[in-house]
Amino acid sequence: MIELSLIGIGTGNPDHLTRQAMRALNAADLILIPRKGASKADLAELRRAIVAEVVTNPATRIAEFDLPVRDESVADYRQRVDDWHDAIAAVWAQTIADHLGAAGRVALLVWGDPSLYDSTLRIAARLHPAPRLEVVPGITSIQALTAAHAIPLNEINGPVMVTTGRRLRDEGFPPGTDTCVVMLDGECSFRHLSPEGLHIWWAGFAGMPEQITDHGPLAEAGPRIIETRAQARADHGWIMDIYLLRRA
Amino acid sequence: MIELSLIGIGTGNPDHLTRQAMRALNAADLILIPRKGASKADLAELRRAIVAEVVTNPATRIAEFDLPVRDESVADYRQRVDDWHDAIAAVWAQTIADHLGAAGRVALLVWGDPSLYDSTLRIAARLHPAPRLEVVPGITSIQALTAAHAIPLNEINGPVMVTTGRRLRDEGFPPGTDTCVVMLDGECSFRHLSPEGLHIWWAGFAGMPEQITDHGPLAEAGPRIIETRAQARADHGWIMDIYLLRRA
Ligand SMILES: C[S@@+](CC[C@H](N)C(=O)[O-])C[C@H]1O[C@@H](n2cnc3c(N)ncnc32)[C@H](O)[C@@H]1O
Ligand SMILES: C[S@@+](CC[C@H](N)C(=O)[O-])C[C@H]1O[C@@H](n2cnc3c(N)ncnc32)[C@H](O)[C@@H]1O
Repeated sequence: MIELSLIGIGTGNPDHLTRQAMRALNAADLILIPRKGASKADLAELRRAIVAEVVTNPATRIAEFDLPVRDESVADYRQRVDDWHDAIAAVWAQTIADHLGAAGRVALLVWGDPSLYDSTLRIAARLHPAPRLEVVPGITSIQALTAAHAIPLNEINGPVMVTTGRRLRDEGFPPGTDTCVVMLDGECSFRHLSPEGLHIWWAGFAGMPEQITDHGPLAEAGPRIIETRAQARADHGWIMDIYLLRRA
Repeated sequence: MIELSLIGIGTGNPDHLTRQAMRALNAADLILIPRKGASKADLAELRRAIVAEVVTNPATRIAEFDLPVRDESVADYRQRVDDWHDAIAAVWAQTIADHLGAAGRVALLVWGDPSLYDSTLRIAARLHPAPRLEVVPGITSIQALTAAHAIPLNEINGPVMVTTGRRLRDEGFPPGTDTCVVMLDGECSFRHLSPEGLHIWWAGFAGMPEQITDHGPLAEAGPRIIETRAQARADHGWIMDIYLLRRA
């Protein structure tokens, strides 16, 4: 029987690690670390550093594996993602079989929290035989954003929509709420909104040493953020960013 | 100058504490612990246990204070809450002045994450002179819920609304999403929805030793949850619960 721990590690600050995450890492027989070619955005280096710093159990082994690439020739988006997840599950299974055999405890370090815009749970569901699954919650980039700005997520008893850049662009400010958090946005989709009455709180690399923040009325802060983001992306070679929009 | 750290401690599992939270607690000159009469729901005992286990700095002092009670004779809800927050800020200020004077590092342990349905940031904004504020993010009950069930929060690239029991009751399933998370619900407000096509994932005491979970089609699981919740509440004298609703 394989036991699989999906361990939320927070958003790039090793101090986001919880005690539960540290225990789960040390309880593992095998820790899997994915590599995405030479890209810095695979954050393999950060995972290695966390493991090196936190894992004191001499019996714990580390295995790196190359993440399959998505086959961009598959036209249908959903099919492309499904195929890719199948391929990742196959590599996990192979790496586990090579290093551990049919029984033992495997751990995967998941960025932020495993429940939030992350495919690890969906990939784990493809393993046969099904492993025993444990999820260790982690600090999300939503929390890293609000902590960076020292702001509440919600208005008093108010609702909050969490959504993606693509939806914001295609569907506008979400209905039924005055607060939304936007993730997975490669193109500052707030620029498609009419900015009147909107405030933005933005963070790049939230929680990390590289953290940059800005906030203000969207009309003023929006153009600034577009520039800052482009510059930071050029400087670092990649960027992750997130923002909260609130209607006054 | 007062430095005030609002430290997210997670949702009742001491292992939800992050390394950042542990460091911030040990950097404090004074840790404030609120008491709510004899109620177990004030969770003062858990805060004391966390401090006793984690704080190794002999210079760190602990001060408990009695939380003022809300004046239920004030008719307007917003006014009642505002007055109450004023009163809490006054007690904080007094306790800090008594134990620390005008300068030093003060820490407050905040349930879950300080940004999510929590008034600590709004109370801190009432302090004069304004302290230097630091927010340490914590595991939220949303993460504790999804971890307990090992489920994703969102559908692939889908939005998620976080809302309250009262809103669900008064406004129905929120617009613009197939997934919502409901918090601050004292009365199983899902019972006011027409259950067709809805699934529920529910947790009481998520992440705690007392954790109870249930899930299924709302039509079947809903009545079960109402019963389980009432029983658990009777057994423990209090309960905190949270759930995710998803449209098929
Ligand atoms: C694939 S999702 C993973 C989210 C992650 N599971 C979490 O809990 O935050 C990646 C998106 O999360 C956000 N994100 C993750 N880490 C971030 C960080 N350190 N700073 C800003 N945004 C971040 C960005 O919006 C990014 O596009
Ligand atoms: C005042 S809010 C505080 C939320 C907290 N700041 C957080 O990050 O989860 C209290 C609500 O959070 C939810 N909650 C907090 N802790 C919980 C737990 N351990 N289990 C279930 N629900 C919880 C419940 O919906 C409860 O009504």
